[in-house]
Amino acid sequence: MSGERRPPVADSADWPDAVADSPNESTLWGRVVVDELYRAGVDAACLAPGSRSTPLTMAFADHPGVRVFSHLDERSAAFFALGRAKRTGRPTPVVTTSGTATANLHPAVIEANQARVPMLLLTADRPRELQHSGANQTVDQEKLYGDAVRHYRSLPDPAFDGRKLRAVRTAVSRAVHTASDGANPGPVHLNCPFRKPLEPTPTDPPEGWAEASPLGARGRPDGTPFVAVTEGRTELASADRARLVEAVEGADAGVLVCGPADAPTPSRDAMRGLALSTGFPVLADPLSGLRWGQHVDADGVTVCGGYDAYLGALETYPDVVLRFGASPTSKPLRRYLAEAGRRGARQFVVDPAGGWREAAFTATDLVVAAPTPLAAALSGRVEREAGGFEVRLADLETAYWDRVADESRFLEGDVLGDVAALAPDPSTVFVSNSMPVRDLDRFGRPHDADLTVLGNRGASGIDGIASTGLGAGSASEGPLVLVTGDLAYYHDSNGLLAVARSGVDATVVLVNNDGGGIFHLLPVESFDPPFTEQFTTPHGLDFEPTADLYGLEFARTDDRETFRDLFAESVATDGTQVIEVVFDGEASHRGRETLQQSVHEWVRSRDGRDAGHND
Amino acid sequence: MSGERRPPVADSADWPDAVADSPNESTLWGRVVVDELYRAGVDAACLAPGSRSTPLTMAFADHPGVRVFSHLDERSAAFFALGRAKRTGRPTPVVTTSGTATANLHPAVIEANQARVPMLLLTADRPRELQHSGANQTVDQEKLYGDAVRHYRSLPDPAFDGRKLRAVRTAVSRAVHTASDGANPGPVHLNCPFRKPLEPTPTDPPEGWAEASPLGARGRPDGTPFVAVTEGRTELASADRARLVEAVEGADAGVLVCGPADAPTPSRDAMRGLALSTGFPVLADPLSGLRWGQHVDADGVTVCGGYDAYLGALETYPDVVLRFGASPTSKPLRRYLAEAGRRGARQFVVDPAGGWREAAFTATDLVVAAPTPLAAALSGRVEREAGGFEVRLADLETAYWDRVADESRFLEGDVLGDVAALAPDPSTVFVSNSMPVRDLDRFGRPHDADLTVLGNRGASGIDGIASTGLGAGSASEGPLVLVTGDLAYYHDSNGLLAVARSGVDATVVLVNNDGGGIFHLLPVESFDPPFTEQFTTPHGLDFEPTADLYGLEFARTDDRETFRDLFAESVATDGTQVIEVVFDGEASHRGRETLQQSVHEWVRSRDGRDAGHND
Repeated sequence: MSGERRPPVADSADWPDAVADSPNESTLWGRVVVDELYRAGVDAACLAPGSRSTPLTMAFADHPGVRVFSHLDERSAAFFALGRAKRTGRPTPVVTTSGTATANLHPAVIEANQARVPMLLLTADRPRELQHSGANQTVDQEKLYGDAVRHYRSLPDPAFDGRKLRAVRTAVSRAVHTASDGANPGPVHLNCPFRKPLEPTPTDPPEGWAEASPLGARGRPDGTPFVAVTEGRTELASADRARLVEAVEGADAGVLVCGPADAPTPSRDAMRGLALSTGFPVLADPLSGLRWGQHVDADGVTVCGGYDAYLGALETYPDVVLRFGASPTSKPLRRYLAEAGRRGARQFVVDPAGGWREAAFTATDLVVAAPTPLAAALSGRVEREAGGFEVRLADLETAYWDRVADESRFLEGDVLGDVAALAPDPSTVFVSNSMPVRDLDRFGRPHDADLTVLGNRGASGIDGIASTGLGAGSASEGPLVLVTGDLAYYHDSNGLLAVARSGVDATVVLVNNDGGGIFHLLPVESFDPPFTEQFTTPHGLDFEPTADLYGLEFARTDDRETFRDLFAESVATDGTQVIEVVFDGEASHRGRETLQQSVHEWVRSRDGRDAGHND
Repeated sequence: MSGERRPPVADSADWPDAVADSPNESTLWGRVVVDELYRAGVDAACLAPGSRSTPLTMAFADHPGVRVFSHLDERSAAFFALGRAKRTGRPTPVVTTSGTATANLHPAVIEANQARVPMLLLTADRPRELQHSGANQTVDQEKLYGDAVRHYRSLPDPAFDGRKLRAVRTAVSRAVHTASDGANPGPVHLNCPFRKPLEPTPTDPPEGWAEASPLGARGRPDGTPFVAVTEGRTELASADRARLVEAVEGADAGVLVCGPADAPTPSRDAMRGLALSTGFPVLADPLSGLRWGQHVDADGVTVCGGYDAYLGALETYPDVVLRFGASPTSKPLRRYLAEAGRRGARQFVVDPAGGWREAAFTATDLVVAAPTPLAAALSGRVEREAGGFEVRLADLETAYWDRVADESRFLEGDVLGDVAALAPDPSTVFVSNSMPVRDLDRFGRPHDADLTVLGNRGASGIDGIASTGLGAGSASEGPLVLVTGDLAYYHDSNGLLAVARSGVDATVVLVNNDGGGIFHLLPVESFDPPFTEQFTTPHGLDFEPTADLYGLEFARTDDRETFRDLFAESVATDGTQVIEVVFDGEASHRGRETLQQSVHEWVRSRDGRDAGHND
């Protein structure tokens, strides 16, 4: 009975005909949505199975120009789409059926909102007459994600109607723009009511409707989006720019601080130019896009990555700070900047969306401008040589890495240090929240490889990590390295289904300290109970079965050389391998503390000596 | 450094002293919230690890009168709490840290809203000064769940302040009431901002503050809730009741229809009384609470459970329908009632909250009244004998089950039939959405065992199934039987961590047809592609590793006798066993269709004969 093979649409160019020939209203609606998405540049979608979403699912599956990823857990689907968008800058629409399926997207929606990642949510719904009726799987999906989306609307109910079709085409092309472009990209939610028949069963389209409504039925004849949106970018007036140039040129001691690229940071080229013209060192968050890349090796440019370890002991401060990106991951850096602020530093926070990413409240200036053009404009106007402070910081950075490279030990952080050092050039590296991103911050030495390092630092959750990483990997040519702690690995183990379904070639590094190692950083550690049971919450899980479940290779070690060998082999090999590196959480934390103390002592002795030299 | 053992609070009665002696404001806030929850009857909480929620986590862990369940996936935690509340009628608060953790509760919140299940969400947040600042893991949690909660408020920021404490005590005792009592229980969200120190590190409480604010600091001296809420119930005026009595007594042919107890159904006693006094048969949804129990065997009471199989062929209709509960699971029953409505039947929908649960829109009357008292009141006033229609329906029900019992075959539905027949008396049976609940509806024969059969039929999602079941089991004395399909099992496999953590003794029946078998019921089946890839979405997963991961016993079979043996052994044995029953989804669906056709033919021949006899 099943198995009727339908003739495929041969070419994306034939799709407008498929729209105009739709056998019923809901099929028409699904096809017109996908038509406009494709025209607006969408080339992939994440689908979760369901009945009410059939018109969208079939249209996406049928469209020759759109790649489809099928997911079973909507939460993972949304994070996968998030990861793709982080890597590409374009939204990968997520399609769900009605009901609680839609709410499963909410965690990723919040991350996309905070981190300004393009996202497009297409939730199927009952038609208006069945809402609030007790109909099965019918819930209130209006404004489901509240203020976490840039735009919400419910599409009109399906109909063979030219004006409604134009309204849908307009809504979809604008939705892609709102989600992706401008100063503040983020999630957009289109709620999509469909009426039965949901599958392409013929009803009786009114005779000649498509000919009477050519624009609605077939869209723009040249294949362009129904609405072309042109949006300018925010640039400073010349007088304002001049004041900024003056402040930077007048600095006694300055730094460029680049937080996670959630709030955009300048391009590597623009940052190299800015570093050269200002003489300021670049304190580059591991998620800033600026800690790794060819600019690191440029003459006259200092990219600092060791600050998380040494800044806490430094007693000299900049008087000018130019900040890009979101609030830095490093707490020592945030404290250092706050202290600089209390000592009167001028701190400029650059944000094209006018967001505020500085919770110490010592920053003096909010600069609302697009970062890359701003950096380029300043580079052309500022002329300043690095002074004593900047030179000492550059020396400290180099000396720090040379010093720690010699030590033989194996801390959790060394896993991240090794990953940063050994990741292929180019590659995509996705790091989990909690300890991995902090450890990468502290242990990841800047160098010139083209690493695209990503993390979910908008809301810093440990949910959706595998999915976000695999989504990013699915949009990359090169290999994917995913580093996760054990809680995050457990939380989104469902996401590993996407390995087989997306064909991503990943190296999954699982740092397993049996629970929430991060809590050892907090004062609650000294209150046990309930520390162990309610905070570290050791689970005692042996994760090897998860690899069996999803058909992945699995290896386990607690030895640094073995880890390096396994890692190098995995990144050079096809297929996805899980490398579990086992640590004792408490011992690991003590080692981290001991190392930190020894670095601080070293910095203090050195800083005192240096300060003496300069006095 | 860790491991400082603190003196436990020996007795719940000492807790007000612990509140008054709190070493800092946030600890005070955590303790006062738990104090009032305990006074209001809360005896358990679901906690997910996190830092910002430390004051609540520590207070819950310290309180001697509250049992604590630790979860790692907040989505599963919320469904576990939902399951407990379904079983007990009281909320089990869910505690999360700030950020995306909170959004992971959303699917369960929607289910609790739709199914009117008590739920209390305690989400930790940054204090006001850190909101909208870019502070780490700080998102907008105001009204996060939109209209899906009965009540939202953000607690005041912590302070040693008598009036604020009284406000918190008032808010908490009212929140428990709003979540649990009255005509429309459901989720309540209290957002809880906390300031550092989050752990019980001493700051300097103002001298004598607790003595100056005794009510706030220690609550009501007799240990009662700060606010005792007394709420009446909705009962009909006598004239309105009389009209209802008249309509029922005047029926030529009547049925009592009890949908899922999401919208409450009358108690078994009240329903027995109503069935006896009206002579109406009870069409009892498997989730109505009325298909199984001692009332089934009462003389003069007919409880029908086979209607999903035979109603589609019946051509005689009632002229009076009295409905309780939510919209029935059975589509044949909903169609039958709609047809009766089109033929002029008077259909009364009883709902204490004035909700509408009838999407065919043929019901004539909405009766806003508490169901159990209404049923009892009618029983005392109605006097009516069963007539021809009712007698024939009772005969058909008996003949139907006798007929199908003889057939030897093994369909997916027979698993549910066997579960209903073999589940221990008493026990809790939780069935997943998609096929299991539909199959239980069709194959589960009413009998007199005290089965508490539950499902998530509010929004009918396949998410959170294991957790909801285990939560229900954690609140039951007897054994738990959980029946799930493979997609639902995959979706919430994280929930299985609760087996070890809650000590529930469960029998997990996993009906595995490798994907979405339910889609074979839909017309989209005949469109392949994309039917297989995007709808049934076969995953090919071998689930045995999930049992390894969570330390469960595992057995697999495709044979009915073996299944019965495994099931009987499991329910008689301690520990949790997963019994996977393997089916081919398509073959299973064909078998279901064939059986249905043969039943319909049998009913038509019989109905015609019966009708002849009565003419």
